[in-house]
Amino acid sequence: MKVYTNPDKSTWNELCRRAQFDKSELNEIVTAILENVKGNKDEALYAFAEKFDNAKLVSLEVSNEEIEEAKTQVSEELKKAIEQARNNIDVFHTSQKEEPKIIETTKGVQCWRKSVGIEKVGLYIPGGTAPLFSTILMLAVPAKVASCNEIVLCTPPNKEGKVNPVILYTANLVGVTKIFKVGGAQAIGAMTFGTETIPQVYKIFGPGNQFVTKAKELVQEYGVAIDMPAGPSEVLVIADETSNPSFVAADLLSQAEHGTDSQVILVSNNKGIIGEIENELEKQVNELPRKDIAQKALENSRTVYFDSIEEGIDFSNEYAPEHLIIASEKADDFIEKITNAGSVFLGNYSCESAGDYASGTNHTLPTYGYAKNYSGVSLDSFVKKITFQKLSKEGIQNIGNTIELMAEAEGLQAHKNAVTLRLKSLQL
Amino acid sequence: MKVYTNPDKSTWNELCRRAQFDKSELNEIVTAILENVKGNKDEALYAFAEKFDNAKLVSLEVSNEEIEEAKTQVSEELKKAIEQARNNIDVFHTSQKEEPKIIETTKGVQCWRKSVGIEKVGLYIPGGTAPLFSTILMLAVPAKVASCNEIVLCTPPNKEGKVNPVILYTANLVGVTKIFKVGGAQAIGAMTFGTETIPQVYKIFGPGNQFVTKAKELVQEYGVAIDMPAGPSEVLVIADETSNPSFVAADLLSQAEHGTDSQVILVSNNKGIIGEIENELEKQVNELPRKDIAQKALENSRTVYFDSIEEGIDFSNEYAPEHLIIASEKADDFIEKITNAGSVFLGNYSCESAGDYASGTNHTLPTYGYAKNYSGVSLDSFVKKITFQKLSKEGIQNIGNTIELMAEAEGLQAHKNAVTLRLKSLQL
Repeated sequence: MKVYTNPDKSTWNELCRRAQFDKSELNEIVTAILENVKGNKDEALYAFAEKFDNAKLVSLEVSNEEIEEAKTQVSEELKKAIEQARNNIDVFHTSQKEEPKIIETTKGVQCWRKSVGIEKVGLYIPGGTAPLFSTILMLAVPAKVASCNEIVLCTPPNKEGKVNPVILYTANLVGVTKIFKVGGAQAIGAMTFGTETIPQVYKIFGPGNQFVTKAKELVQEYGVAIDMPAGPSEVLVIADETSNPSFVAADLLSQAEHGTDSQVILVSNNKGIIGEIENELEKQVNELPRKDIAQKALENSRTVYFDSIEEGIDFSNEYAPEHLIIASEKADDFIEKITNAGSVFLGNYSCESAGDYASGTNHTLPTYGYAKNYSGVSLDSFVKKITFQKLSKEGIQNIGNTIELMAEAEGLQAHKNAVTLRLKSLQL
Repeated sequence: MKVYTNPDKSTWNELCRRAQFDKSELNEIVTAILENVKGNKDEALYAFAEKFDNAKLVSLEVSNEEIEEAKTQVSEELKKAIEQARNNIDVFHTSQKEEPKIIETTKGVQCWRKSVGIEKVGLYIPGGTAPLFSTILMLAVPAKVASCNEIVLCTPPNKEGKVNPVILYTANLVGVTKIFKVGGAQAIGAMTFGTETIPQVYKIFGPGNQFVTKAKELVQEYGVAIDMPAGPSEVLVIADETSNPSFVAADLLSQAEHGTDSQVILVSNNKGIIGEIENELEKQVNELPRKDIAQKALENSRTVYFDSIEEGIDFSNEYAPEHLIIASEKADDFIEKITNAGSVFLGNYSCESAGDYASGTNHTLPTYGYAKNYSGVSLDSFVKKITFQKLSKEGIQNIGNTIELMAEAEGLQAHKNAVTLRLKSLQL
C-alpha cells in the first residue's frame, strides 16, 4: 500500500478517486439483452441460461421439491447461525418502523405520514463461487418487515440447472415468495418487464457484476426503481495508538478479498502502528485462499498518515467510505464529526464482518462516494411514505386566505378558487 | 371527460396509462448542453442565458442589492401568507426528525442510525409565467431542517436579466445560500459539474420542463442524486353521495390548469354526483384565466364509475395518483385501503391547494405512477441515514461463531479471520 504523509487538501480529491471503468461497450450489450427479454420473455430466459450459465433448464421457477431437498443439505450448525443473523437483522429493521404521528400544523389542519410496503419487490442474488445467502437476509428480512406482498428472487443456476442449497434454504426461511433460476442482466430485465413466468416488480435490489449493475441503471427508464447505484466494495480504517494492528490488518483483508477492484484505505496518526499493520498484512495475506485477489486489491489501496486524527476524519468524510472502521478505544469521541459514510464500526471489536453478516445492520451500502448523497438499504427502502392531510372547517378558515394569496401570486386562479368556494360556503 | 362504467379489471392497465412522450430527440439536445457546461463552465452559462432567456447577464449570482430591492417589492400581505406556509412546512418536516435509537440486537451488540444532512444540495425553480416560490418553501425549508450546509438555487432570468422578486424574497427568507440566474438543462449541468461561480452539489431537487427533467435523468451518471423521476402533475378524486360537486369540480380544475398534459381522474359510485360535477366543471372552467389549458387537460381525463366505492379505491391504487382526494364525509374509513398515492386529502375541506401551499405537507410528489415505488420529498430526502455499530468483547463473543460459520459458507476466509483473531485474543 502506497503511503501518503500529511497530503495537502488540494490533493485529496485525487486521493479519494475510485477506479474508473469504461462502460460504453456495456451499454450496447446490456441494452440488447434487455430488449431480447422484453420481446421474447421466458423463451429469452431459457436461451440465456443455456448461453451464459451452460444450463438446460426444464423450469425457470425453483420447485417445492428442490426447496425441500435443500433443507436437508444445510448443516444444523449453519441453520442456527443463519437464525441468529436473521433475528438480529429483524430486530434492527423492525426498530425502524414509524408509527403515524398526527401533527396539527395550524388549528384544524392535521398532517401525517404513513409507511406502506412497496407491493412487489425483486431481489437479485449473484451466483459465482460464493453463495451470497447473507444478502438474502439483508434484503428479504426488511421486505417482510415492510409487508411487501410479493418478494421475487432471481439467481443464476449452475451447469446442472441447480441453485446452491443455502440460497434456497435461506430464501424459503425468510419468506421469499418465488425463486427463479435467472441470472445476469436478463434477470433484471425479467423483473422489470415481467414474463409469462416471472412477475413484474416495482423495485429491484441487490448486488451483481457489471452487466447487472448496468442493467439496473438502464431499466429505471421503464419506471422501475432500484436500491442505489453500485460500485466496488470499500473500507476505510482509522487507526491510532490504541488500535490492535492484527485486527486492523484482518479487517483490511476482509475487504480486499472481495474482488481485485475492492479499495482499502488506512488512515492513521501513528507511524509505528502503520508499520505494524503492514507487517501483519504481509503475514496474514499469505494464509488466505483468496490471496491473489486480496493482494491485487491492496495494490489499488492507500495508507494516509496525518499528524492529527481530526484531519484523518476530515479526509474520511471527503472519501465517503462505504464502511468506516474507527479502530480506536476513543471511537465514540469521533461520532459527531462523521458526515459521510455508509456504515460505521466503532472500537476494536466491531469488525466489518459483524455488519456483513450478523449484528443486525444492513450490508447493502453506498459505495464509490455515494455515501455523500445516498443511505444504505433500510426499512425505508421497502416502503413509500404517503402523506395524509385532513382539514376541518376551522382548518380551511385558518389557512384559506394564505392559500388564496399564494395561488394568486403564482397566477393559479383555479387553485385559489378551490379555497374561495369552500370559504364562501362557510360564511353562509 | 370520457365516462367508463364498471370497467373490467383487464382494462384498468389501459385506463391508468399516462400520456407517452417521445424523448429520443431530447437526449441529444440535452447531452450537448451538459457537455457544453462541463467544458466551458460559466462561459457556457452566459451564452445560454443570451440564447434561451434573451438575457445579457453581467453576473450569474444574484447580488445582495437585488435581494434587498426584492424585499421592498413584495406586499406585506403576501409576506404574511408566506410566513404562515413556511411555519407549517417547518413544523411538519421538523416532526420527521429521528433521534438515534440504540438497539441492542444481541447482548453487547449495539446498532443505531443517525441522520446527517446532505452537505450540498441544489434546487431548481422554473421560470415562465408563474413564479413558483411555493416550491422554494417545499425544498429549502426541509433542507434547513436537515442542516444541509449549502443550499444553492438556480432559476432562469427574464429578458432584463432579473429574477421575480417573490422568488428572491422567499429564497432569502428560508436561508438559501446562493441564488443564480441560470435556467434549463444548463442549470442542472452547472450544479452537477460545478463552474467557476456555481458550486457542485450532491443532490438536485425541483421541477422543470422536459429539458430539465431529461437533464436530471442524465446527470445521475456523474454521481449526483436527484429527488425523483418526474412526469406531468395529476389528481384522482373519489366522490360519493356526500361530496360537494362544486368543490370537486374546483379541485379537478386546479389540477387541470397546471398544464395541457395534466391528468385528472374522477372516480365515483354515484351517477347523480358525476352529472352534477360535470355541470359544475363546465360552469367553472369558463371563468378561469387559464381556461384553454384547463380545457385541454380535461380532454385527456377520465371519469370512472364503479358500483362500489371499494372497487374505486382498488382502481386508485392501480393508478397510483400523485394527489388523491377522497371527497367524502366517510374518507377516514378508506385510509387503511390506500396502498399507492403520493399525498392523500381527506374529506370535503382538504383541497389539493391546501397541500400545494400551506398545510405543511410537501408538494413535491411522485407522478406518472411512481407512487408505487417512490415517496414524495420529505426530510428523508435531505439526509443520509448512517448506521453505526459497537460490539463489546461480550458482543463479539456472542455473535462471533455465527459470523465465522456464515463467512466460511460464503467462502470468505478473511471475513472469518477478522472474527477468529478477536475471539482468540479474548480466550487468553
